[in-house]
Amino acid sequence: MAPSVAVENLNPKVLKCEYAVRGEIVIHAQRLQQQLQTQPGSLPFDEILYCNIGNPQSLGQQPVTFFREVLALCDHPSLLEKEETKSLFSADAISRAKRILSTIPGRATGAYSHSQGIKGLRDAIAAGIALRDGFPANADDIFVTDGASPGVHMMMQLLLRDEKDGILCPIPQYPLYSASIALHGGTLIPYYLDEKTGWGLEISELKKQLEDARSKGIDVRALVVINPGNPTGQVLAEDNQCDIVRFCKNEGLVLLADEVYQENIYVDDKKFNSFKKIARSIGYGEDDLPLVSFQSVSKGYYGECGKRGGYMEITGFSASVREQVYKIASVNLCSNITGQILASLIMNPPKEGDESYAAYKAEKDGILQSLARRAKIHLPQKAIEAAKAAKKAPDAFYALRLLEATGIVVVPGSGFGQVPGTWHIRCTILPQEDKIPAVITRFKAFHEAFMAEYRD
Amino acid sequence: MAPSVAVENLNPKVLKCEYAVRGEIVIHAQRLQQQLQTQPGSLPFDEILYCNIGNPQSLGQQPVTFFREVLALCDHPSLLEKEETKSLFSADAISRAKRILSTIPGRATGAYSHSQGIKGLRDAIAAGIALRDGFPANADDIFVTDGASPGVHMMMQLLLRDEKDGILCPIPQYPLYSASIALHGGTLIPYYLDEKTGWGLEISELKKQLEDARSKGIDVRALVVINPGNPTGQVLAEDNQCDIVRFCKNEGLVLLADEVYQENIYVDDKKFNSFKKIARSIGYGEDDLPLVSFQSVSKGYYGECGKRGGYMEITGFSASVREQVYKIASVNLCSNITGQILASLIMNPPKEGDESYAAYKAEKDGILQSLARRAKIHLPQKAIEAAKAAKKAPDAFYALRLLEATGIVVVPGSGFGQVPGTWHIRCTILPQEDKIPAVITRFKAFHEAFMAEYRD
Repeated sequence: MAPSVAVENLNPKVLKCEYAVRGEIVIHAQRLQQQLQTQPGSLPFDEILYCNIGNPQSLGQQPVTFFREVLALCDHPSLLEKEETKSLFSADAISRAKRILSTIPGRATGAYSHSQGIKGLRDAIAAGIALRDGFPANADDIFVTDGASPGVHMMMQLLLRDEKDGILCPIPQYPLYSASIALHGGTLIPYYLDEKTGWGLEISELKKQLEDARSKGIDVRALVVINPGNPTGQVLAEDNQCDIVRFCKNEGLVLLADEVYQENIYVDDKKFNSFKKIARSIGYGEDDLPLVSFQSVSKGYYGECGKRGGYMEITGFSASVREQVYKIASVNLCSNITGQILASLIMNPPKEGDESYAAYKAEKDGILQSLARRAKIHLPQKAIEAAKAAKKAPDAFYALRLLEATGIVVVPGSGFGQVPGTWHIRCTILPQEDKIPAVITRFKAFHEAFMAEYRD
Repeated sequence: MAPSVAVENLNPKVLKCEYAVRGEIVIHAQRLQQQLQTQPGSLPFDEILYCNIGNPQSLGQQPVTFFREVLALCDHPSLLEKEETKSLFSADAISRAKRILSTIPGRATGAYSHSQGIKGLRDAIAAGIALRDGFPANADDIFVTDGASPGVHMMMQLLLRDEKDGILCPIPQYPLYSASIALHGGTLIPYYLDEKTGWGLEISELKKQLEDARSKGIDVRALVVINPGNPTGQVLAEDNQCDIVRFCKNEGLVLLADEVYQENIYVDDKKFNSFKKIARSIGYGEDDLPLVSFQSVSKGYYGECGKRGGYMEITGFSASVREQVYKIASVNLCSNITGQILASLIMNPPKEGDESYAAYKAEKDGILQSLARRAKIHLPQKAIEAAKAAKKAPDAFYALRLLEATGIVVVPGSGFGQVPGTWHIRCTILPQEDKIPAVITRFKAFHEAFMAEYRD
């Protein structure tokens, strides 16, 4: 009898998922990975280490104290009745925890909540959005999720019927989108960001890819926009965003706005504008555009990846479609309450006048400044010339050499946009915690050898 | 232009999901729900309240103190450096938190972990399983999940290719299974539990349903067994479990063992045996049977639904199939760390000699005894006779009357098995916290009227 469960009889969408990751470096890494399987020992390393995903606290970034004070008090509310607590926790953390607990029936942080999240926390999130945008936000539009990923999966599950349904995604993109589209059996329609306009999103490119997909019989359902695009500060200009909103309305696309990096802006003359704010600014109401905004507690200065918190704000869906979203959410009961509380905190951090404000501000600024510094690498002139000879951007040249020498996959900054003459890599650490020491050792050895080779 | 997103162009599997919930009371409830939509005001209530899912802490059950002490310390580790902490927390909670933090690189409870969960916590879970079963357990076999539901979804996503793939599920069943099978496009093959053998799982019934499904061209991939079946104490007998294990091996089925109620046994002569223990006891090794055991922090005496913690232990899958499970897990990065810590705690609670043991034991026993008491209702003789005249079990009669009068959906105990002459309902509270006061008011009014009507 054949084995009851074998790769041959698994869901082919699951199998296909692994071919969905894109980008030159990652594709090259996959090639090297195959080589390692077919010819073990043929490379100077035994495995590929994907460092293209952000996990700041595993690298020593400390959590914001105020957030953790509130979480600890909500986890163990009987602390609030003890005198010693006043000397261990800030006064505003105590009052915030009390306020949060008062919105939870029975103060039960161990109970399933409403499948969209605790109503009081959604009220707080909506208030934070309204303050940020200057336009009203409604708690009924908020679906609190275990990070942004489950929200993206829910949308893909909702919209994708088969491989004839397509989703427009930016290239380069976060592999979540390609993986989720593959898992749900749809087709990823790539569009390319244009370096000449500061990595803006050209409407002509969107139109071209949309028409190309339609000519192949693809029903394009949605446009994914990631703004800001990454921690190095690529932020879409306001008029570019207006054009995108109009394009989605005219073409009948759902706008899936990945806005998880809204706090990661390191350039003074750039400003984050949510797509909902842009849509309302040009007079578009609920009925003009189905729009989903994703936010996460994992990014920004908070970096609380392990807490799995986030939300999506859904506007412009009919009541009957929204009911289907609610149904998918309710099959999973609810997102974790710790993550829910944290999502409400990042949208309502301490304000001036609060006891915690000075400490909070110092922690926040320290983290953001450190992130900005860390993104940059200094390359010797000789390395820049060697890159030119190889027809590569210097940071892409560095990233390829790093991959070939060590198996470590990073993303060159030239794939994201950067100030001319500066070079960056996006090097972050994947979940496999036991491999972190190896990454650091190999990376250090490579960097020293590279710098020695190209010393000016 | 047609609306870009409408019910008509959504994923049909999402739409189908709502027809997947089964059982007489629930089907009747759905009928009443439709009636409310087409003829508003035609019933003595405005909406249907599904109370067929467990949420103890929303009804006042207090969390176990030791668990919450450890969570608070892990959320805010700087407490561990303060002198006052020693008077606020038990000594073993402090040492447990230190031990847990020491297994997390950088003590970072805000970092993404390994996609299967933090290795040190999986070691602790495996040790707890080994102690429970008397057979070894391996941390590499543990996938820590946000409650049991995501684990079930992952298995359905893995196994189901299309509607020709079937999963054998018990009736009555927890609606998660029907919903998940519908969402992933497979077919639910029902099998019925037999009241005459104490709601045992008859192999003849399994065979009959399996052959019937195969004759229709269905490729039956797995058998779902829920053991213990529910909080009233239905526990499969050991020899029955042996037969089930042999049946799965002989028929080439994956055994999906829902063992989330392993602590909810209220009868002295019954004992929980995990299916893995049973399989190993009869000499079956890894290669004989693909077996997945689901556990959750939401059930038992812990009842930590909102924390979304749980795990699945996977044995008997080939390395290449396991890799696919890992891939699905990694697309979602990791489960929430608070839930991960809690999963390790419920599998390793305080032991005799620990400072917290006496308080822990008192809390645990109090909760379990209270749950056992609460499951029972006392019906007057007249009501029992009225039920007999209506050809219903007395508790089913009560449940139907409750539904018709109030819109509240509960599960009659006769659908689960109970001591002859006793009657039970399973009445629990759905996530919609704002409706809880209405449920209690309506339920109380109904119960008083019912008891008055049938007073002996």
